Amino acid sequence: MPDVLRRYLPVLEWGRTYDREQASSDLLAAVIVTIMLVPQSLAYALLAGLPAEMGIYASILPIVLYAIFGTSRALAVGPVAVVSLMTAAAVGKIAVPGSAEYIAAAITLAFLSGVMLAALGLLRLGFLANFLSHPVIAGFITASGIIIATSQLKHVLGVSAEGHNLYELVVSLLSHLGEINPYTFIIGALSVAFLFWVRKGLKPLLIGRGVTPRLADILAKAGPVGAVAVTILAAWLFGLNDKGVALVGDVPQGLPPLTMPSFDFDMWLALAGSALLISVIGFVESVSVAQTLAAKKRQRIDPDQELIGLGAANIGAAFTGGYPVTGGFARSVVNFDAGAATPAAGAFTAVGLAIASLTLTPLLFFLPKATLAATIIVAVLSLVDFSILKKTWIYSKADFLAVASTILITLGFGVEAGVTTGVLVSILIHLYKSSRPHMAVVGQVPGTEHYRNVLRHKVITDERILTVRVDESLYFANARYLEDAIYDMIAKRPKLKHVILMCPAINAIDMSALESLEAINERLKAGGVSFHMSEVKGPVMDRLKRTDFFHHLTGKVFLSQHQAVTELTGKATEGKKSKADRSA
Amino acid sequence: MPDVLRRYLPVLEWGRTYDREQASSDLLAAVIVTIMLVPQSLAYALLAGLPAEMGIYASILPIVLYAIFGTSRALAVGPVAVVSLMTAAAVGKIAVPGSAEYIAAAITLAFLSGVMLAALGLLRLGFLANFLSHPVIAGFITASGIIIATSQLKHVLGVSAEGHNLYELVVSLLSHLGEINPYTFIIGALSVAFLFWVRKGLKPLLIGRGVTPRLADILAKAGPVGAVAVTILAAWLFGLNDKGVALVGDVPQGLPPLTMPSFDFDMWLALAGSALLISVIGFVESVSVAQTLAAKKRQRIDPDQELIGLGAANIGAAFTGGYPVTGGFARSVVNFDAGAATPAAGAFTAVGLAIASLTLTPLLFFLPKATLAATIIVAVLSLVDFSILKKTWIYSKADFLAVASTILITLGFGVEAGVTTGVLVSILIHLYKSSRPHMAVVGQVPGTEHYRNVLRHKVITDERILTVRVDESLYFANARYLEDAIYDMIAKRPKLKHVILMCPAINAIDMSALESLEAINERLKAGGVSFHMSEVKGPVMDRLKRTDFFHHLTGKVFLSQHQAVTELTGKATEGKKSKADRSA
Repeated sequence: MPDVLRRYLPVLEWGRTYDREQASSDLLAAVIVTIMLVPQSLAYALLAGLPAEMGIYASILPIVLYAIFGTSRALAVGPVAVVSLMTAAAVGKIAVPGSAEYIAAAITLAFLSGVMLAALGLLRLGFLANFLSHPVIAGFITASGIIIATSQLKHVLGVSAEGHNLYELVVSLLSHLGEINPYTFIIGALSVAFLFWVRKGLKPLLIGRGVTPRLADILAKAGPVGAVAVTILAAWLFGLNDKGVALVGDVPQGLPPLTMPSFDFDMWLALAGSALLISVIGFVESVSVAQTLAAKKRQRIDPDQELIGLGAANIGAAFTGGYPVTGGFARSVVNFDAGAATPAAGAFTAVGLAIASLTLTPLLFFLPKATLAATIIVAVLSLVDFSILKKTWIYSKADFLAVASTILITLGFGVEAGVTTGVLVSILIHLYKSSRPHMAVVGQVPGTEHYRNVLRHKVITDERILTVRVDESLYFANARYLEDAIYDMIAKRPKLKHVILMCPAINAIDMSALESLEAINERLKAGGVSFHMSEVKGPVMDRLKRTDFFHHLTGKVFLSQHQAVTELTGKATEGKKSKADRSA
Repeated sequence: MPDVLRRYLPVLEWGRTYDREQASSDLLAAVIVTIMLVPQSLAYALLAGLPAEMGIYASILPIVLYAIFGTSRALAVGPVAVVSLMTAAAVGKIAVPGSAEYIAAAITLAFLSGVMLAALGLLRLGFLANFLSHPVIAGFITASGIIIATSQLKHVLGVSAEGHNLYELVVSLLSHLGEINPYTFIIGALSVAFLFWVRKGLKPLLIGRGVTPRLADILAKAGPVGAVAVTILAAWLFGLNDKGVALVGDVPQGLPPLTMPSFDFDMWLALAGSALLISVIGFVESVSVAQTLAAKKRQRIDPDQELIGLGAANIGAAFTGGYPVTGGFARSVVNFDAGAATPAAGAFTAVGLAIASLTLTPLLFFLPKATLAATIIVAVLSLVDFSILKKTWIYSKADFLAVASTILITLGFGVEAGVTTGVLVSILIHLYKSSRPHMAVVGQVPGTEHYRNVLRHKVITDERILTVRVDESLYFANARYLEDAIYDMIAKRPKLKHVILMCPAINAIDMSALESLEAINERLKAGGVSFHMSEVKGPVMDRLKRTDFFHHLTGKVFLSQHQAVTELTGKATEGKKSKADRSA
């Protein structure tokens, strides 16, 4: 029992040895992360089309639950850009932004996603996330970044614009360009410029003035807090709320409320597909962040346990007024760089955010939405990176096709269509490739017992014997290809007496492939050619022995290819002799 | 140009050498097939919920078009049981059986299916059909046979019953049991009994009386014609139409009408999925029949050209009042056994059916539907064969899972859900298996240059060197598994200095896997372990050289594993020495 507990509750592992030194590291990291998280959480809630405070709520209980169930020591869980965008896309399909149904749907989405993640973790199905290939993720993140940045332009310009793909967004923005609010635009543009400068120019400046690189890095990451403070002050001083500048407005003061997901089955059905996509994207993003950070300290991440940790975090979000969360890259890196030693840093961050939610919320009344939009734009544009297109183009056209279609479909039809396309195209390409396995006709390298591809080496062959080596396991998708290839080869070789299938690279033969081998055997038999196999692996042999395949096989199974050729050359000669005798 | 023509018009090939002898063989076969096809075509139209004459129409122009475009010399194209059932399921979703919309939808379905087949053929995508594995097809046909037989019981009993899956059908039948029409039941039951006897008992009897086996076989196949003739006579003599026996009734006399598919986009959208499933199932069934027959005469079938032939046949069906067709097993075997030498036999059959349509249709007025239902039941029950469950259970549990889920979902949720499930389950199982490739830690077989699995052989290993052999190509779905496996192995080997990835079975490395190799290289470097590769295949090496992978690789690439170990053992010893020197 304790073993099971320790497996599912990693907190029991690190909690036992928790000491004062670790606590002080964690506390410092928590303070820094809290300062960074306040504007970020508000901004991502805005991106998801939700009230700003939901971003804060989504960072409190989820962080604590992840600390208990998760395996990464540095991962910081909460709202992130891509998942917020996906939440907006999913919930926007069934409710109007700003309505009570919209909020209820976002909460329910977190719940469904949490249940799915936890279920996948308990069933140890984490490997499913592998079907989202690295290049597809890179393309998806890049395209999402562009959509997110474009979607936030409306807040920077002070106009209204809607759309879930690039085309809709741009058309909508252009048609509202005449309504630009100059005050909003000034705040927005200055914030964007300031935040870009903080990101690129502040750190070198600070280091030049003698600040340690680590501190300079953390200060640069606090840029958004500065922008938030200054624009709040400006909005209050100049009474910008009377001048058409959209402000965050009243934010309830207090701890996260207790909320319930909807148990309406129709809503579940409508959100299930989106919840699955969000779960997978969130999980993949989170695990790759966690593994990158763990690698630096030679720690290990258990992907299945990560699913459980993220599942618990999302279920927690659903019951405390939050929306779908996952491990964020920026916040986790800050947490790590600030020296977080254990997941307790996350728990301390939660306390910090709870205090912020209790005390700071009145100050947010004057916070311009343009400032938050500026922080989102600057954050996501750093994710945009088209170099994956060039890289895959050079390395593999198949990967390029997967990335390019992911980017195009994401931009043209939105995030859900994009990520689905990426996965499907990758799988189809893989299936296509494995449905035409590499095959080689082999011959003997003179003076050796080695057999090599006749096309690449000078080898000895015998027109009565054809040896085909297949370099892949045989299964339903390539079984017929094998049949066709062999039939084509024998059609061209009238003097053929023996076909040898050389199997050193065949790790498995499924039922369809077995039937194809039987068909090949029958077909060859009808043409007076016998069918042999050589170098069959142990497990494959064991399985074939369970069937009556060897009762029908016209030829033999040889341990080595050389043995096969030696024996058959003798036989073939005898056969030829007796034929010659007969005709004589 | 002539080459292109000859490729797409196989008729030009066999037509050039067509002679009187072939013509007389073809003519005889055509007469026999025509006699067999009349009742069969009527029956399958009934199964599809369509007017009986549509079955005949679907056998005329399609047969001629297949003779021009198809590559099989014996395949007979027309309505078949499974495709008729699938047509009923597809069209029944959007129209009421018996209505004009229902007929229009069936015609449109043939058109869409024809266009899809032809497009797949022109794009040379015939390989896609391979994803329907042999065991899944076997399971699907068995389950469909049960549904078809059950669906026809209502005609034999003279009651009304509806449903697209076994449960609905059985419930509906049971609730109408009180309404059995005794006359219908007598005709139906006697027909079933007679047809079963013809199938099992007539052939031995005829052979016993000195009839040649081939003729006996053909006479036995003509059983349905006998049943049709006798029951028509009985219905007419006893005036059964006044006694509640459902008869075929008025059938228009004449050649097939010219019809047009609907060009309503909403209908296309509604039918597209079904059309694709019908195309794939029809193609797979047809090709397997064609290949079986071609093999007997050592002829070859071109699957892509077959797609074009079947596509033309279905488009032809759509314009002449037919519905989806494909190459049928029973009719093709009869055609082959009756001595058909070329596809011209099909053209002659079409003429025969046209004559039947012009002259025989008035006789069909008195044909009881129960007789047709009986012919269907007897025909499809011969397809039901559960032995595939036992076979796969013994050979491979993965294949068993695919078959069992196909059968259960087909019976429980209908044909479309069933075949989709079969394909998806097969692909998921394949992806799951290939996502956990076989890996072995290898060591040197004493006294040789061979390296083998440490778990299976007595081999020499060095605690400073770990050699891992992966027996599968590396791609996105198994890249992370490889990373995890290697990290786990190095965590257990504190004295490790070198990791060698032995690659003789790796035929490809995709972009995701390349990134994983880079990650492994970085991770090992951080731990002071260098990363080498051995026996990398030529094409894989060429591709890796296009990237900067080798600039970062901490170790080397060795042509042979033995060379790697020899060189690294030297190095490792030196490393150890120098360390020892330092500590001394």
